[in-house]
Amino acid sequence: MSAKGKLKFIGTTTRSSDDTSQITIFPEYREALEGLTAFSHIIILYWLHLNDTEEKRSILKITPKRHKGAPEVGVFASRSPVRPNPIGLSICELLEIKNGTLTVRDFDAVEGTRIIDIKPYIPRADSIPDARAPSWTLEGSKT
Amino acid sequence: MSAKGKLKFIGTTTRSSDDTSQITIFPEYREALEGLTAFSHIIILYWLHLNDTEEKRSILKITPKRHKGAPEVGVFASRSPVRPNPIGLSICELLEIKNGTLTVRDFDAVEGTRIIDIKPYIPRADSIPDARAPSWTLEGSKT
Repeated sequence: MSAKGKLKFIGTTTRSSDDTSQITIFPEYREALEGLTAFSHIIILYWLHLNDTEEKRSILKITPKRHKGAPEVGVFASRSPVRPNPIGLSICELLEIKNGTLTVRDFDAVEGTRIIDIKPYIPRADSIPDARAPSWTLEGSKT
Repeated sequence: MSAKGKLKFIGTTTRSSDDTSQITIFPEYREALEGLTAFSHIIILYWLHLNDTEEKRSILKITPKRHKGAPEVGVFASRSPVRPNPIGLSICELLEIKNGTLTVRDFDAVEGTRIIDIKPYIPRADSIPDARAPSWTLEGSKT
């Protein structure tokens, strides 16, 4: 059977807290972490399984709940977990890697959330301090 | 049939060039773009179909070709298109949206590359100018 177009889970969220969280990469993928600690921050892509229903994946407009005063917007103009592909993206500080387990700061996925990719954060490409964003993004949580 | 854990393609790359590129969102998802032009930059997630083979998805270490002097690293410590899930991530300036087609700057995916998500770039969450990265990331292309 072809696996084309199919996601593979590479790890799982083994501890979730408001401060630091832990992500455990499955043993067969751990070699792919080599060199990652040279970066202070990482981009984590994960599968928002609680939103993986046909009903939620059909919603196209939402009102961002975590930002006071936000208007109704399209899901592609928000970081809502409700979207056609329930993929979450967080940029987190990487504190430690030990035995295939990453300790990161400010990762707000629930325990059991499966990971689909880890990428290094490269400020030259990824940091745009003066990017324009509407004022509601400044209220409440960061995303 | 359940679509759980399955990707849906929401659009495709209709023009690719070194400068500006165009992404056309499929008609059934266009409503989800509402409000996006309030953001100057967007995060584009896309499926690197040319790397969607079992052989390439099994590679765990690579030497980043586009960065002179880069050592061999794990794929999670690089932005290589070769990785267990061939998902590309680009942060691009959004120039225009017209009839469901986005014109963006610096998107280097080839024509026909299918899009899986668009997210707004929120500098408060996504911009970390002083993030630490190894010196090889400063050579050659941005990612």
